[in-house]
This record gives sequence, structure tokens and C-alpha cells, in this order.
Amino acid sequence: MNKARSGSLLIIGGSEDRTGSRDILQRLVALAGGSERKFVVLTAASGRPEQVFGQYASAFRAMGVHDLTHVRTSTPEQAQDADLARLVRAADGILMTGGDQQRLCELLGGSAIERAMHDAFESGRACVAGTSAGASALSAQMVIGPASMDEGSAAGLGKGLGFVSGVIIDQHFSQRNRLGRLLGLLGQHPSLMGAGIDENTALIVQPGVGIEVIGQGTVSVVDCRRAVSNVSDIAPGAPAELLGIQLHVLPAGSAFQMEVHEPGSSMLSRQARPAPRQVQDFVSTMMQRSRAA
Amino acid sequence: MNKARSGSLLIIGGSEDRTGSRDILQRLVALAGGSERKFVVLTAASGRPEQVFGQYASAFRAMGVHDLTHVRTSTPEQAQDADLARLVRAADGILMTGGDQQRLCELLGGSAIERAMHDAFESGRACVAGTSAGASALSAQMVIGPASMDEGSAAGLGKGLGFVSGVIIDQHFSQRNRLGRLLGLLGQHPSLMGAGIDENTALIVQPGVGIEVIGQGTVSVVDCRRAVSNVSDIAPGAPAELLGIQLHVLPAGSAFQMEVHEPGSSMLSRQARPAPRQVQDFVSTMMQRSRAA
Repeated sequence: MNKARSGSLLIIGGSEDRTGSRDILQRLVALAGGSERKFVVLTAASGRPEQVFGQYASAFRAMGVHDLTHVRTSTPEQAQDADLARLVRAADGILMTGGDQQRLCELLGGSAIERAMHDAFESGRACVAGTSAGASALSAQMVIGPASMDEGSAAGLGKGLGFVSGVIIDQHFSQRNRLGRLLGLLGQHPSLMGAGIDENTALIVQPGVGIEVIGQGTVSVVDCRRAVSNVSDIAPGAPAELLGIQLHVLPAGSAFQMEVHEPGSSMLSRQARPAPRQVQDFVSTMMQRSRAA
Repeated sequence: MNKARSGSLLIIGGSEDRTGSRDILQRLVALAGGSERKFVVLTAASGRPEQVFGQYASAFRAMGVHDLTHVRTSTPEQAQDADLARLVRAADGILMTGGDQQRLCELLGGSAIERAMHDAFESGRACVAGTSAGASALSAQMVIGPASMDEGSAAGLGKGLGFVSGVIIDQHFSQRNRLGRLLGLLGQHPSLMGAGIDENTALIVQPGVGIEVIGQGTVSVVDCRRAVSNVSDIAPGAPAELLGIQLHVLPAGSAFQMEVHEPGSSMLSRQARPAPRQVQDFVSTMMQRSRAA
């Protein structure tokens, strides 16, 4: 893998601290190269874009960021706007806010803005971040449907933006008790892995290097690839029997790299260690990009 | 194993239906031999014993049970009462209600009532059931401490009544989002297994035969015995890294037996099948009794 080929991803489980120590947003600034760089906030997921942008504008200002633009794309036409796309392509830090991930992907999927995000990421410069709905949309396989655990089996997969592939990213994971929903999806799509990210917690992915967890909660990695399930024998919506699920719980400080790196090439914590056998497949999956087809 | 040696266990995750179809309580009546048999309800866990007994009295009456006694043990002296112990020893169905499992075990641990329960169980006649706190108390290793997931690492283990051993039984499992708490305990006690039982859901154990799940939700079996954890290297209370947890999700209808049985010897569903490799250790653990030492 060529480390110079891609930027980094910051996948945030929602409700990140915006007014206190802002640890996760501070890391976004650092991954983008510092507070002097160019930042854009995409509010396509939100039904209240000005209000949401206002919160981030205050937070970024407090962190010393001056070059911050609101990329407001409330219509498909705006998502094709060449001037906005130029801004996104030139950005060092790109943050997709929360809201409704279906709305986000309907507006941005296949748009000039989406192409600009991929260009910025693939240039090796930009950190692309998403929180809550914006986190789920980062993968090619995106969870959609009811948020409640009791309706887990009715959740489905939609097409996300494809900064990663082979993984379903869920957010507000412990707080909204979403393991059941994620297991329902993985039972139906056992080739995928699941990453459930808690609130005020984030997974950093540096392609070619590794992954790291930061923040308050944990990232739950769910792997049903070797599980035995009766999902094809039961009525739709009935809870499935799932035997042999692998679960890994990663708190802040879990940092895994895939190989030894030259000094300075890694943006991960100094504590990053070679990925243990149990999580090597997950780390590899997260580091393997695929543009949404 | 000698199938004739023990009765059955009905381990209920709390909030079982008491006024509608009463599926779980109906199964208790069936496991005890039918509505003509003798039933006792133990309210030691509860701070409102008369009120709780009243609810069960209505439910059992509606199921055609006439021989029902309230074994009220609000003091250590009552827990030594020889007449009450005789009633318990003669019972075919014994139900421990919810409340506070520490209170329950402080009152009953080592008492005449507890010995009577074990005698009834070991006679091969009685079904011993527990719901909520009463369910956790059935194991020799009992979860105690804060109910909140955010305080998971502060939960601890106490001494339960030992109808099973080697397993931590948790209840209201999905509804109260208790996976984090259970993982915190299993990280510290990796030789134990965890069984997280949802509300209105129960795990039936027939020693010498097998196990079965009934009800609305699922039983989550958590096995950290081969997991790799940093629990001994981190500050108490900090979330641990846990790699390679095995998780099995068993919905109603999951019924596993350990060997082929003569017709009539099994009280499990007809659909019971040989326990798959993944859950054999769990089934064996559940079937292996140990009196609290």
C-alpha cells in the first residue's frame, strides 16, 4: 500500500464535544494539518443546516480555525455547484454533520461535491470526517431504516459514499442500544463487518498505516463472517439465531498499525502497535478504500 | 449424567407477561407438572412483597393453579422458619421474584429455605424459577452493583444460590443495555461465561438433557474465555480493550440437547437439536450444578 495515496478518515459516533475540550474536533484539525488549514462543513444530512453549521462555526473558531466554509447543499442543484465543489476539493478538513443519512446520500451521491470529496481524500491531503449520519455515510454499505432495536430486522442497507467498503458503520451505538439492529443486518449480509461507534468517540483510519480509537466510549467491531445463522430459514422480522459472532471492544487508546512505518509517516498515536491477529481483518477492511460504484 | 437427579430451572429476564398469554409462567406450570401441583412464590428480593405476591397470585389463579403459597421471608428469622421450609421442600414449582438480588441472597443464603429449594430441585421434581433479581441469584456467581452501563466497571460479583455455576446471569439485558456491564465483569473473570436474558424471555435448563429459549426476546451468551484483554494493565473503571469475544444470540426456539434421549424424558421443545459446537460449552456449563459452597 502506498501511504502517500490517501488522506485520513475520522469516523465519529455522534454527539462529539463541541463546547468543552473538543478532543475529537481538535484531532480533526490536527489530521487536516492544523488550524491554519482550510475547512468545510457539509450539512446535507441536516434539516436545520444553518443552526448546525452555527454550532460548528463556534467550535472551529474557538480552536483557532479561520478558514471555514459552510457547504450547504439542500437541493440536488446545489450539490452540483461548481464553486462549492472547488471549495471542497481544496479543503484540508471536510466534516459531514449528523441528520438523516439517506437524505445525505440522496443529495450527495454521484454529485460534483461527492467527487470533490474523493479527490481531496485521494490527494493524500484531506481528512474526511463524518459524525452520526455523516459517519454511516462514509462507507459504501450504509445502514438505513428504523433506529429502534425492536425494529432491528426491518433495517436495511443503502448505498453510501464509499470512503471505506465492506463495513457497516453504526453510531450512537451503546447509547441507542444498536447491537441488535447491527446483528440483524450482519446476519443478512455476513460478508460485511460492523463497526458500532459510541457517542463522543471516533475511529481514525489512516490508509496504509492503521486505525486508532479516541474519545469517551468504545468502538465495537462485530464480525459475523464465521457465524452460523438461521436467518434464511425464519420469517422476515423474526429474531435470528446467531452462533459464533466475534466481537471486539476497542476503547480510546486502541491503536493498531499494519506494518512498521518510517518516523513521521504515521498520524496515529505513538502507542500504535502491530494489529493483533483478532483485528487484522478489520484493520485491513477499514484501510481498503472503494469509491461508490 | 443421570437425568432423574434434578428438576428444571426457568431463568427469566424480568417483566414476564403476567396478564396476557402468560407464556413463560404457563411454561413454569407445565415444567412443575401442571396446574394441580404445589407452587410457592418467594418474595425475599422485593421491598413490596405483598404487592408483588398479589400480582403472581392473580396470574397463577388465572392459569388454574389453586395450591399457591407466599413464602415471605423479610427477616433472617423467617428464612429459617421450619414450616415455610417444609412448604418449599414439597413444592413442584418455586418462583423467586424480582427486586434486589443482594437482599435476596443475604436473606436466603445458607438458610433453611435455601436448603429446601435445593432439596426440591435435586429430588428431580421441582422447577426452580427466578425472574430479574431472582434469575441472577440462581447462579453461584451473581452480578451486583450499579445497573447503569456507564458504571459497568464498578459492578462486581457476589455469592448467589448456586443452582448453576460458572455463569453470570444478567437480566433486562437488551432493554437496560447491559452488555457493557457484563463485558466489564467477564473481562475481570474470564473463566466465567455470561448469559444476558431479555425481558419477557426465559432460558429453560433441564440437567442431563439440554437448554431452551422461550419468549419474546433473546438470550445473549457471552464468552470471553479466549478473549485477549488489557484489563490488568489499565486503571480500575477505565474501559478495557477486549479482542476475540465470542457472542451467541439465541431467540425463542433455540433448543439444544447434549445427547439423544428416550421419548418422554425431555421437557424441552420437540425441535431441540444436538448442541452445535459453538454452544456446547455453554450448554454443559448450564447443566452442571453446584451448590453454593
